[in-house]
Order: sequence, then C-alpha cells, then structure tokens
Amino acid sequence: MSHNHPYKIAPDHNFETINATISPHGQLNILSKVEVAKLLDSSQSGLYKLFRSCSLAVLNTGNDLDDGKELLERYSNFDISIVQQERGIKLAVKNAPANAFVDGKMIKGISEHLFTVLRDVIYNNDAINENPNFDVDTTEGITDAVFHMLRNANLLHPGQDPNLVVCWGGHSISRGEYDYTKEVGYQLGLRSLDICTGCGPGAMKGPMKGATIGHAKQRTPNGRYIGITEPGIIAAEAPNPIVNQLTIMPDIEKRLEAFVRLGHGIIVFPGGAGTTEEILYILGILLHPDNKDIPFPLVFTGPASSAEYFERVDRFIGDTLGPEAQAHYKIIVNDPEAVAREMVDGIKKVREFRKQSDDAYYFNWQLTISSDLQHPFIPTHDNMRNLELHKNQPSHLLAANLRRAFSGIVAGNVKEEGIRTIEEFGHFELHGDAEIMHPVDELLESFAKQNRMKLPGREYKPCYKVIK
Amino acid sequence: MSHNHPYKIAPDHNFETINATISPHGQLNILSKVEVAKLLDSSQSGLYKLFRSCSLAVLNTGNDLDDGKELLERYSNFDISIVQQERGIKLAVKNAPANAFVDGKMIKGISEHLFTVLRDVIYNNDAINENPNFDVDTTEGITDAVFHMLRNANLLHPGQDPNLVVCWGGHSISRGEYDYTKEVGYQLGLRSLDICTGCGPGAMKGPMKGATIGHAKQRTPNGRYIGITEPGIIAAEAPNPIVNQLTIMPDIEKRLEAFVRLGHGIIVFPGGAGTTEEILYILGILLHPDNKDIPFPLVFTGPASSAEYFERVDRFIGDTLGPEAQAHYKIIVNDPEAVAREMVDGIKKVREFRKQSDDAYYFNWQLTISSDLQHPFIPTHDNMRNLELHKNQPSHLLAANLRRAFSGIVAGNVKEEGIRTIEEFGHFELHGDAEIMHPVDELLESFAKQNRMKLPGREYKPCYKVIK
Amino acid sequence: MSHNHPYKIAPDHNFETINATISPHGQLNILSKVEVAKLLDSSQSGLYKLFRSCSLAVLNTGNDLDDGKELLERYSNFDISIVQQERGIKLAVKNAPANAFVDGKMIKGISEHLFTVLRDVIYNNDAINENPNFDVDTTEGITDAVFHMLRNANLLHPGQDPNLVVCWGGHSISRGEYDYTKEVGYQLGLRSLDICTGCGPGAMKGPMKGATIGHAKQRTPNGRYIGITEPGIIAAEAPNPIVNQLTIMPDIEKRLEAFVRLGHGIIVFPGGAGTTEEILYILGILLHPDNKDIPFPLVFTGPASSAEYFERVDRFIGDTLGPEAQAHYKIIVNDPEAVAREMVDGIKKVREFRKQSDDAYYFNWQLTISSDLQHPFIPTHDNMRNLELHKNQPSHLLAANLRRAFSGIVAGNVKEEGIRTIEEFGHFELHGDAEIMHPVDELLESFAKQNRMKLPGREYKPCYKVIK
Amino acid sequence: MSHNHPYKIAPDHNFETINATISPHGQLNILSKVEVAKLLDSSQSGLYKLFRSCSLAVLNTGNDLDDGKELLERYSNFDISIVQQERGIKLAVKNAPANAFVDGKMIKGISEHLFTVLRDVIYNNDAINENPNFDVDTTEGITDAVFHMLRNANLLHPGQDPNLVVCWGGHSISRGEYDYTKEVGYQLGLRSLDICTGCGPGAMKGPMKGATIGHAKQRTPNGRYIGITEPGIIAAEAPNPIVNQLTIMPDIEKRLEAFVRLGHGIIVFPGGAGTTEEILYILGILLHPDNKDIPFPLVFTGPASSAEYFERVDRFIGDTLGPEAQAHYKIIVNDPEAVAREMVDGIKKVREFRKQSDDAYYFNWQLTISSDLQHPFIPTHDNMRNLELHKNQPSHLLAANLRRAFSGIVAGNVKEEGIRTIEEFGHFELHGDAEIMHPVDELLESFAKQNRMKLPGREYKPCYKVIK
Repeated sequence: MSHNHPYKIAPDHNFETINATISPHGQLNILSKVEVAKLLDSSQSGLYKLFRSCSLAVLNTGNDLDDGKELLERYSNFDISIVQQERGIKLAVKNAPANAFVDGKMIKGISEHLFTVLRDVIYNNDAINENPNFDVDTTEGITDAVFHMLRNANLLHPGQDPNLVVCWGGHSISRGEYDYTKEVGYQLGLRSLDICTGCGPGAMKGPMKGATIGHAKQRTPNGRYIGITEPGIIAAEAPNPIVNQLTIMPDIEKRLEAFVRLGHGIIVFPGGAGTTEEILYILGILLHPDNKDIPFPLVFTGPASSAEYFERVDRFIGDTLGPEAQAHYKIIVNDPEAVAREMVDGIKKVREFRKQSDDAYYFNWQLTISSDLQHPFIPTHDNMRNLELHKNQPSHLLAANLRRAFSGIVAGNVKEEGIRTIEEFGHFELHGDAEIMHPVDELLESFAKQNRMKLPGREYKPCYKVIK
Repeated sequence: MSHNHPYKIAPDHNFETINATISPHGQLNILSKVEVAKLLDSSQSGLYKLFRSCSLAVLNTGNDLDDGKELLERYSNFDISIVQQERGIKLAVKNAPANAFVDGKMIKGISEHLFTVLRDVIYNNDAINENPNFDVDTTEGITDAVFHMLRNANLLHPGQDPNLVVCWGGHSISRGEYDYTKEVGYQLGLRSLDICTGCGPGAMKGPMKGATIGHAKQRTPNGRYIGITEPGIIAAEAPNPIVNQLTIMPDIEKRLEAFVRLGHGIIVFPGGAGTTEEILYILGILLHPDNKDIPFPLVFTGPASSAEYFERVDRFIGDTLGPEAQAHYKIIVNDPEAVAREMVDGIKKVREFRKQSDDAYYFNWQLTISSDLQHPFIPTHDNMRNLELHKNQPSHLLAANLRRAFSGIVAGNVKEEGIRTIEEFGHFELHGDAEIMHPVDELLESFAKQNRMKLPGREYKPCYKVIK
Repeated sequence: MSHNHPYKIAPDHNFETINATISPHGQLNILSKVEVAKLLDSSQSGLYKLFRSCSLAVLNTGNDLDDGKELLERYSNFDISIVQQERGIKLAVKNAPANAFVDGKMIKGISEHLFTVLRDVIYNNDAINENPNFDVDTTEGITDAVFHMLRNANLLHPGQDPNLVVCWGGHSISRGEYDYTKEVGYQLGLRSLDICTGCGPGAMKGPMKGATIGHAKQRTPNGRYIGITEPGIIAAEAPNPIVNQLTIMPDIEKRLEAFVRLGHGIIVFPGGAGTTEEILYILGILLHPDNKDIPFPLVFTGPASSAEYFERVDRFIGDTLGPEAQAHYKIIVNDPEAVAREMVDGIKKVREFRKQSDDAYYFNWQLTISSDLQHPFIPTHDNMRNLELHKNQPSHLLAANLRRAFSGIVAGNVKEEGIRTIEEFGHFELHGDAEIMHPVDELLESFAKQNRMKLPGREYKPCYKVIK
Repeated sequence: MSHNHPYKIAPDHNFETINATISPHGQLNILSKVEVAKLLDSSQSGLYKLFRSCSLAVLNTGNDLDDGKELLERYSNFDISIVQQERGIKLAVKNAPANAFVDGKMIKGISEHLFTVLRDVIYNNDAINENPNFDVDTTEGITDAVFHMLRNANLLHPGQDPNLVVCWGGHSISRGEYDYTKEVGYQLGLRSLDICTGCGPGAMKGPMKGATIGHAKQRTPNGRYIGITEPGIIAAEAPNPIVNQLTIMPDIEKRLEAFVRLGHGIIVFPGGAGTTEEILYILGILLHPDNKDIPFPLVFTGPASSAEYFERVDRFIGDTLGPEAQAHYKIIVNDPEAVAREMVDGIKKVREFRKQSDDAYYFNWQLTISSDLQHPFIPTHDNMRNLELHKNQPSHLLAANLRRAFSGIVAGNVKEEGIRTIEEFGHFELHGDAEIMHPVDELLESFAKQNRMKLPGREYKPCYKVIK
C-alpha cells in the first residue's frame, strides 16, 4: 500500500510488466517429472490455475491493489512456467508486475515467495488432498493436516524457546496506526521475539519492519518473519518481501488454526471486518471449556488515536459474548513497550505450561478447536442467511457463528469469488436476535465511518444487510 | 568387522547392553501424534516391528555379526520407544548393544542414524506405500517413488556439480583388500569426490575412511558419505558411523535403483555373491538399447592380490553376456590414483552430457531401467527354480535374470528371511543352459574357495545347488 | 536524536543509570595481563581515561545529547572495569546510561561497540602509537597506519566486490531530510550496496535503517553498516546500534582518510559545518593532479525541501574552488532511485579501474592524499588565525586550508576540547582574501539561518568571527 | 614419511617440481605495501630468506626427507613471490615439490599452511621483534610475546571448554607405534578432544588421523588439529596437511612454552632425543615449587612392543630427577581407551581448577616457567660443554639443564645449523657427574640401538660424546 510505504518513489499507473527467468535460492528446486507435469496442467484436474494466481499475487507486492478479481484481470496475460535444467528447476515469468523487480532483477524475497508457492501448491495437493492418511472429516484429522503443512513449510523449529508473536490487524490502516505497529514490532524485536502475520501490508507489515530494526540492534540474524496466507486472501494482501517464511494454507480456517497452533501469543491492532473475524476466532477457542487452564497472551493495542476503536470492539464483545470473553484479553493504548513486556511475560507462562505438560513448544497440541471453527465456511447467500446468531447457545459456539458472519463479509469485500457472488445475487442477509444483531450493526457502521471497511480513496459499498 | 577395524580394543563377547535416552541433532524430531502412534503400534498393521529391527541393526555397528536372524535373537530384549517433550521427541532405548556408546554416551553418528530410521520408516509407509499418487506397478511410478524417497532423505542437492562415486564390494574382505579400498577412497577424497556405498563394513567403509582423510587435507568440510541400505540387508551390514547421510529404501531393487540414479560413476571392489548381483544389475542397465549413448564410468579395481578375482569375474561376464558387456567397464589393478583419475574423467563426461540434455545433475532421469530390474524378486524356492537362465534372450534380460539368481543366493546366506527358508526347505535349485550354468557354478566355487561367500571364521555352507 | 527516532517512547530526563556485567559475543575478549593493566591504569600514561570516555559515548546512543563535555559531566560517576574469567574477559559498568538497556539487559549492538572500543584503544596504542614501524611523519607512514587500523578492525574484506557507499551529512537534520536519507538507504540496500557513515544519528543513521530493510528484502544477511568515528567526535555523535562494524580512528584526519580509502563512492546529504569539512576534504583529494584519472563517484542529494541548501554549497564551491571542483560531483534532488543507480554505475567504473590496475578492491591505495590533508590540525586560536585562505595557491591546497577552517568551527561547536577553548579565549578569528572569505561568511550565515549549526531547541552561538 | 603413509603410491625419487599461483582461502591475504616489500627483501635485513625456507618446508610434506640442510640444497631453485591483485594477494611458487599437488592443483591444506607462514613471518617480525612493547629479557615479557603470537594465530578460543591434548613423540617411529598413535587419537576424537602436536609425521600425525575419524563419527566438524613448529624444526618435520591450525613460533623455547600454555594435558609417545627434550621440559616446569598445586595430566604411552622404551625413560628419570619427578606422570601400555579416559578425567580437574581461580581456559597463565626454560639455548660447542649436569641444584633446574643437553643433540641430528656445526667442529662434548652422565649415556645408547636417533634406512652417527 503506497500510503504506508515510505520508500516508494512513483506509482506504476501503467502496470508495467517484465519477463524474466528466476533461479531459486536454497533447496526448493527439486521436482519430479510428475510434479512438473501437474503444475503445468491447465485442465480442471491440474494445478496450473491455482499456481498461476498465487504466483501473480506474490508478484503484486507493493502495489495498492487489494482486489483479487481486478488483479487477475489487470495482468490477464501473465504467465508462469517451469524450466528444467541440470542444476534444478527455474521459473520463467511473462508479463509479471514490474514492481517485483529492481533494475530488471527480481527482489530475492519475492523470488523466494514464488518458490514457496510452488512448494505449497504441490504439497497441499499431493501429500494432503490426495492422501487418504488424512481424514479431514475429523477434528484430529484436520489438525494433523495443519501440522503436516506447517512441518513441510519448515515452520516447526523444535530447538527454539517459545518466542513467536502473531500480529493481527487491518491491511488498510492510517499512517499513525501503521507507525504504531512499527513501534510495537521494534519493541518486540528488541526483546528477540519473532513475528507472524497474515503477511500483507498495513498491520501485517509494520511489525515486521520494526522487528527487523530491533533484531538488527540485538544482532539476531535469524529473526523470523512468518507470513501465513491462503489462496483466497493472498491477492488482496500480497506478502511483503520482508516475510522470510511464507506458507499458503488451503483455506481460511486452516490458516487461522495455523496462527493459533504456531504462535505463542497474539497482538491485535486496529482493523476492520477481517480483524473482527480473527478476534472472534480466538475468543471462540479460548472460551471453550476444555481450554480454560491453557495460558494464551492476547493483547489489543493501538495508538491514542485508535482508542475509540478498541472501546467499540470491547463493548461489542461485552454485549454479545459477555465479561467472561472480555477476561481473555488486555487492551493497552499507546504504549509499545508495555505491549512487548506483556508478551514477554505471557510467553514465559506459556513456556512453563508446555514444559510441565511435555507439550511441544513449536505446536500447540493441547488447545481444543471445535469443529465449528475448523470446517471451511462457504459464504453463500444461503449459508449467511442461516447462521445462528442468538444467545441461546454456549458462548464459544456463538463466537464461532459470529466469526462466520464476519468471514462472509470479508469475502464479499475483497475476495474474487465473494465479489462475483455479490455482483450476481446482491447483498448477504444476516438474521439474528436483536441483542446480537444490534451490536453487530453498530460495530460495522462504526467501521464504515472510520473508513475501515475498504481501502481509502474508494467509496465503500457494504456487501451485507442486517435483517433485525 | 573387527579384523578391519584397527581401533577396536576388545571384543564384546558378552553382548553388553546399555539403556539410554537419545536427543536428536538437527531437524528430524518433529512427529505428529498419529506418526508416534503408528511407530509404537506393534500390531501387524503397525510399524513397530520394522522400526525396532532397523534400529537394532543400526546400533549393532562395529560388531562382527552379519547374520540378521542371530542379531534379533541375541538382543531379543532390545526395546525402543518415543518420548514426546517440549522441544520435540527423543528416543529411549533399552538393552542396546554397548558398542554404540563411548563412556556411556551414544556415538553421535549412530544416534543420527537412529533418527534416520525413524524418518524413513514413517515416510516410506505414509507418503509412499499408503499414497495412491504412486503407481508402483509402472516403471515410471517406481522411479517416481525412488525420487521421492531420496528427496525426502535430503540426498538430492541441486546446487552441486556431479561428484558422487558409488563404491560396491564385499563387506567381508581381507585386510589387504580393505586397505586398498581406503587408498582409493583417499585418492577420491583428495579430488573432492564424495562417496556412496551400501554403508556396511569392508568395501563399504574403507573408501569412506580414506575419503575422510582426503577431504580433511583438502578442507572439504561438507564431504558426503552416503549409505543406502534396506531392511533386509541392514542387519548384516550395519551402517558405519562415518556415514553422514543414511537412507533405508524399502527393498533391494529400489536400493539398487537409488545407487544408479544418484551416483555419477561406480567403482567395484572385490566381493562375493552380493557384489556379483550388483555388477549384473548395472550391466543389465547399461546393456539396455535405450541407454547406449549415456556415459556411465564403471571401474573394477583391487590390489595386486585380488587380480585373479577380477579375471574370474571378467571371464564369467565374457562367457555369459559377451564382449559387448565387457566394453562397459575397465579393470584397474593396484593403482588407486589411476582409479580416481578415471572417475574424474568419466564424471566430467557425465556432467557434459547432462548439461547438454538439461538433465538434472542430482538424479539420473534418462537412464532406462527395465521393469525386470525394478520389481522386487522374492527368492522363494519356486521363483529360484523358474529363473530363465539361457542365451535365448537379449543380453540385458539375461543379465537381469542372472541378477535374480545371485540375489537369491545372498538372501540364503545372510538375510533373516532367506536363512529361515533354507533351514525349512533345503537348498535353492538353479536350472539353465550349460553355457550359462557352467560359468555360474565355476564363479561361485571360486568365491567359496577364496572365502568370499561368508564371514571368515565360520564354515561356509552353500544355500543353492546348480541343476545342470 | 529523539526527533528522528520514531520508536523512542519517553525521554530520560532524569538520566537514569544501570550497573551491569557484559559478556562479549564473538572473538574480542582475549586480553593479555599487560593489556588489562594498561586499560585500568588511570595515570597519565595509562589508557583508562580514553577507554572510559569512548565507552560512555557508545552507551549514550539514542540520547539527544551531542555535547561531549556535558556528557562527561552528566555521567561523572560512570565507571568501567575489566573482569578476567575462565572463558575470557567481561566488562563491568557502573552508572551507565539506562538507554543502552532493554529490560535491564544491554542491547547487543551496544555491547559489541563497547568491546570494539576496547579493541581499538589497545591496538591504536600498542601496535600503532608505540610501534616504531610506523613513521607517521611521512605520507606513506600515515597511510600505512590507517591500513593497519582498518585491517585490525576487520574492515578489509578481500573477497568482496566493491559495494561500499560512504554517506556523509548532518547528525542534526529535519524529519523530512532524515526520511529522505532512509529512502536513499533503502534503494542502496535493494541494490546490495553496503553503508559506511560517521555512525551517529541523523544522516549517519537513516541510510543504515533504510538499507537494513532493503537488505532484508534482498536476503542479504551480511549487510555491512560500518561506522568510523574518533575520540573527539564520538560523544557528540554516538554510534547507533545498527552499526555492525565500528572503529575508532585516533584523530579526525585518519578518520577522513579511512572513509576515502575504504569507500567506493560517497553520497553527501544536507548537514552543517562538519559536512562542509567533509566535502572540502574529498574535493581537496580529487583536485590533486595525481588523482585526475581515478574514478570516484560523488553525489550530493536531499529532498526537494533542501534544494536551496545544495545550491548554496554548489555556489560556494564554484566561487572558491571553481568549476573544475564542481565537475567532481553531481547534485540530485529528490530522487533516491536515481542516486542509487548513479552509485551502482560509478562503482562499476571503480571496479573496472581497480581490476585493470591490480589495485585492491578493499583499500584505495592509488589515491594520493597530500600531507596537508593528513596531518592533524589542532584548532588553536593561533592556528585558526594563520590559515592561508586565498586563491594564490593550487586549488587542492586551498581546499585543504578551507577544510581546516571548517574543522576548527566544528570543534568549537561540539567537541569537549574546542568548547573549553572558546569558553576561555573567545571566538576564533578567520583571515583571508575577500573573494574567499565572503563566500565562507555567506555560507555559514545561511547554515545558521537554516538551523544547521547546532541542535534544534537551543540558540546557536557562533564560535568564529570572519575578519575580512 | 613414506613408511607410515599408507596412501602414498610411488616415491618421488626425481624430485619433480611444479610452478603454480596460489589463492588463499579465508582472511590471510591482506598485506600492506610495506609488508610485501619486507617479504620480498632478500637482503640481510629482509624477511625473504626465512619466508622462503619455511615455505619450502611446508611444501615438502609427505616426503621422507627430514634433513633441513639437504632440503634446501635439493630444491635450490625453489622461489616464492607475492602477487598483488584486486581481491588481495596471491602467492607464486616456482620449482615447488610436486608432492604438494594433486593433478596439478595444490592440496588446500598445504596452501593454507603457506599463507600461515606468511602471516607468522610478518607478525613475529613486525609486532613482536621490532616492537619495544615486549621486553623479552623478562619472564613476563616472553610469556606476553608467546600470548600475542598465539592470539594472532587465532589459537586462543575463549568460548571453549578445555579439550586440547598435546601429543609428543618421535617423527620417525615404527609402523606398530604409528598405528598405536592413531588408535589413541581415535579414542581422543571419540571423546571430542582436540589434538595439538609438533605437526610433522609419525607421532605428530597419527593422533590427528585417528582423531579425524573419531570426530567424523561424533559429528565434530570443528575438530582442531593444531601444529606448532619453529623455523629450525619445520624442515625436518614438515606439517602434515591435516593440521588445520598451524603456527610457527620464533624459536624452540617459545614453541615449547606454546604447547604448555595452550594444551590442557600431554601424552608422550615413543620417540628419541627430541621427545626426551620435551619430557625434560615439562618435568622442569612441573617440578618448580610454584607449580606444585596446578593439575596437569601427563601420560606416557605406547603399544606393548614399546614397553621397554618407557621402562628406560622412567628409569632415567628416576635415576636423575628422582621419584618426585616420577610422580608427575602415568605410564599406560597398550590401552588407548584408558589413555583417553585418563585425559578426560585429568582435563576435568584442569577445568575445575581454572574455574575456581578465574584463570583462562585458553591460556595457562598460572604456570611458572623459569627463565632457564624460556631463554633460547644456542647449542654451540662451548655452551654444550659448560652445561651444569650435576645433582647439586634443585631438581627443576637440573631438568632444565638436561633439557638443554638433549636440545643440542637434536640440533646436531637434524637441524641445518646444527649439522653444519658438527661437520665443522666435530662432536659436542657433554660433562657432568657420573650419577647423571651414566644414565644419560645409557639412555642415548638404548635409543641408538632401538633406531630412535635417526630415520631408518640410514646409519646413525652420534653427534655428541659423553665425557664422564
């Protein structure tokens, strides 16, 4: 996003493109003949379509476009193919966005991401989807699949002490909020904490940039900047090149589970509907009776200017899920050092707990995630209309249902598929008890007013209607 | 084997054992709950039996026992289990052979091998056997499976120039022959060539020891000492701890294919029936019409004292497969430098060829291996009796059938299953044309006379009978 | 400096201090008994005083104090000592500025700098000052000494292609100028260029922060952020902790020579008298007849808002040294990418030239530096009064004399010794031809008007008087 | 030495030579112009003669020539020079011994040694000899100089636990003894101990080869094989290329002090007069009253066949220095594991002692070495004749004097200077009390009888006469 990218010189309004051949760095370039064939197979059963769209999204970094459909249309003649050579495979791109290059050479961080796309598209297809070992109809089966994907992405580091902070928040935030996320990241980096985000711009980039400077000062050359995305979101939130460990989970629910199993604590910055979805997801887990003794540091934070935002969110949670839910997080306004210290302390407790229970530091096996939060929610008009949004259920299930509602709204806002659906069938309709729906409506209106529902510079058109 | 192990102090006739908990070095210690469960499942469908027997074999290194059945009986109360902890898994062994330890601590090379067993047992089961992506009924499917196993074992290094020499030969050879294999290994190491063997003692250890010194002098800290074994042979030929990249292929045919796809040239030292099997395997490939333009350096070599051995082998090949087969190898007697230079030159041609044809340096995709050489041969009495051992077939098929005959003889000599079969049903019977069977018989007799059919110190009892 | 340090939370007006024991990282902790004794010797012949004041300056990073004298007074009870232990030496600090610590632990970058101080104080004393091998009365002898200090500081990397950009400019600049230096640094980092500065705040820190992000995106983990300082300037311009290779040269002339021998090109950002001194120094060299064929990229750059600044400087150079001098640099306003590309192109020519002449990439042996620029200039009132500031001399000598004049002004502004001298004896007096002195006066007045002569927030009191 | 070099193919009786240009690996290739000039200065004041002779000695590795004078004559047209290039300096050799090359390329271990010679010749001259900081007339000054040389050679590793075993013994020993030193080295390597020797063949090479295999099995990639030599001995005992940290001390006394300050324990293998000199040196130190509480493991060991040798040595020590001296060592015959365990235990005590007394692990500061053992002993006929060899002195002084006697004998046997002296003036004459001189005579005779006074294959001519 250009407005929080201080080093950007001139916008590329002409969508300049470049052709290039890319060599990998590291060990990702060994493919079997069968794998190459699948990747290049543009038939329905092949992987080419997915491979191409994720690759294009990765190359789109630094651009201000966060609309997946528009991206595919803008670079409709983009092409990517695989070149087999004696030292391994290379990638050939045609008509790739010029922003991914410096003086004609692709930025290495981006070329790394391209090869990551390759790895994940193949692995998720071959080893997971087509492998009967994984029973993705069971809770255990889904968690096992998430574990295998993260292990294959080399994200599980057994030797390390817990130090991974997940940062959530909007990809389209104000300059002041963005600077604040950098300050928090800097304070985390000074304390040798690593960062994991959804890997796009805004609140997903600021903490990484700040941590990069903090790590440099603390001589932490192996700082991890983990980005976890999924095919539906990657186009809207292209990974920034600081991300040095990227993975593409197959759907949004596995992406969310990956955050929670991998991270040792979560910081939430200001955002919009997507951020609210994430808050509801983690509260849905922490409210589950099985998880009540498991420590999990959770902090909401922003600069003084966003104090009102968190008041709104806090009130919404209090109104819908009650004080029990409010007990699971702390709100810290305008104090990056305090946020970082809170994380250090909370993660110390996580460490102690895992040690006592012989649970792995690198994967949170003990957390129960109910199947309501695991199974992919497809935001059709029917599914949206039928969501159970009332208080006549345990609070962790209500949280799960609210999560689905906000997930649908995000899809309608930025995802290719969702945008098409809205274009065709009109607004989503949300039903529910007034004591739930009123706060939902209020919150979404406040977001719209604060310009948190869409990128600045374009008028926001809501994709949903609350039917009270 | 004690007689070629100059540093061995005192034999362990009392089979001393030790209990210990082993932490991994490196990245092999991340297992899912499902994987742990399978490994500890001692039912028929579980992996425990295989995991235990391979682990015991690995721990048996440095012992002079090359009889898989006796090994399992000797350490019948050996046990291995998995301990999950916060930093990953550890292994707990009970009643493990004391030879694997120095002052109570397991030798790191051996503990590395233990974790390799873990990795391969799981991967070969989950990702290969139970995965419908691999059609192991086709030639391409088997090669694809071999590729995946080698890639998972981290044996495919795309960045590297071709430099891998496969060394074949007996695990039970004379001191003079053993010293000669060290000299050849030293000359290879001085030329920065890496070594791949079947990873047991004798001709599988000498070249690695020599290369270690050569690499040290050439400051080659990343010298590779690759050992490729399989569950049936590992007990008889326990990997020596210098091996720093071990993999356990599922059967003997995939093991042989791994040697040939991975290596850039082959040196054959003196050996017995097993070595002859290997020679027939590579000749069966090189004689295939599709492979006639593919360079593949192949050298038979030994000290002056083993000149007669290679005369015998050469004559046998001439008598059965003819001069065309003899054209595929060079015999060099008592000149380690010449052997090393021959490999350097031959591998230079391999490099040139792969470069021109854009074939990978790290995996020999172009070599055609006929299904006769790929499909596992089960040496039952019936299968042995029915082998087609006549000249009325293309020479590469005759080579494949002769390979099977010798494979059966090796099984009857040293493999647990084979020994039991012979104990129960008596000798294997081999039929065939006299012009084939006479040379076979002659060769095997000369091996027996030269003490090449079994370890020294025990009387050799043949497990086969040639029915002329 | 707080105003360009976005992550600073709260100023430390109470000068909080901390006691701590610091272990080294890396190899700097081996001292002989004699060396330890010298460092702790607080007598006149000992090194303690120098060691203590440089250490204190290093610890003062991030503070807004740029007055060496005030620093020593503020932390008058600061103490540092050496603790010998079985694994090497440690440092014990008492009453150290709290800013150097995070949650009670010293920032590693700063502790690295402390041990660097130790190394340089000892080496410069023992190996250089007290060693008769270096004849510092000759031009060759001084250059040889500079070479030895840089080599001992591990700054000469023979394997590397030329890629080191020296950035000069003010330590006290506006927010807009500071952000611009970050943008330039970012563009340099994206092109894998390394950064060398005087290692304080402002224009000495911005390019390093920007390059850190650029290097992260290009996966350049070994980015070099070199800081070159000297005992008189370090207190005013404390090294920022991103600096990962620090060295303390014994005096300002050797520091300037180090920049020029080490760097492959120079970028000058806006600054004040100190920056003008640096400009005159490099022009004094490039104007020397012996150097006329030696390529040396030199760019003056700043944001649009500082266009006037460079017009002034350019006019001053034109008026005093003439168009020949103006031919040695380019002025680029508000275009970081163009600056970076100019450096890439210029350094390519440097590389070509060194290659053809077999001159080292890592040390610019060929550049002639006249003794006028090498010998320390002590800014006494007499020396200042007697400077030859007229056009009746070759332009490179006039540049050298002008350099001295500005050097004296910097001393009077920020150096402990200089401030004391002015307090005691009043203003420096500068004599000279009107055609020289008029532009000098004009330039200095414009600096004062632009607040470039001293830190903002305090009234600037000139330390000199131009006697026309 | 060819007889213990199992991989040597054919002797080089024609002294084949090669011309080549050698690039350095690592960081040794930065020289100032002054340093290059000194190295190429073949005048009396220049360093060329020393540089050339040490370089030739390093290149002579693997040859069976242990006579410095003969070496210089054989390769009289050998030349070495320095080539300055853009990436640093290279070395050009002319008429270098062909043994240092494999297929025309210099073995990297040897080229590393060449650059080490460069480093040490310069440093010992510039930083030590010509630097008034070192007062080599005092005990402290000599120790300080030794410390600086070892630090400059990067031999002091502060982070490491004590693990360095010094191995002494003959360079010309029997095959059985040589194999035994390999076995001991193997057992040391298995216990992750590092090796330091005089870096020639025989007992100086065997332990390193054995440890290389032990380290490989224990995955100890940073095993240290330290060689410490001096200009007078290097030609006779050329460093073997396994040595990965070489240093050339300026004289034999500083070399001996380096062993003792650096190592954490000493193993003595069979040898001749040189080995006896070393034994007397360490006993001279351990017998010093100041050192009586300092732990220092000292073991004499060899295979069964050399049991008699150690009986002789033990008896000689008992007869001359008494039981107090005998209490300082253990004799272990034919048990490499016991030797290694003894070292592990002894070094544990060293560690404990240093920790308690805050003495460095990497340099034994506490040991008192009397000036009699430190000052170079020049074995002129006069000096030899005047040695005080009687019991009328403290035993540590008698040990020091006996050390000098044996030092002279070594010089007369193998050193260029010594051989010339004997050729010119005839035998050295040794005077002394019968109770000293009788055991001396007896010991030397037994050495001659055991062929321990000179290389096999040539008749031994004694260079001394005992005047009873």
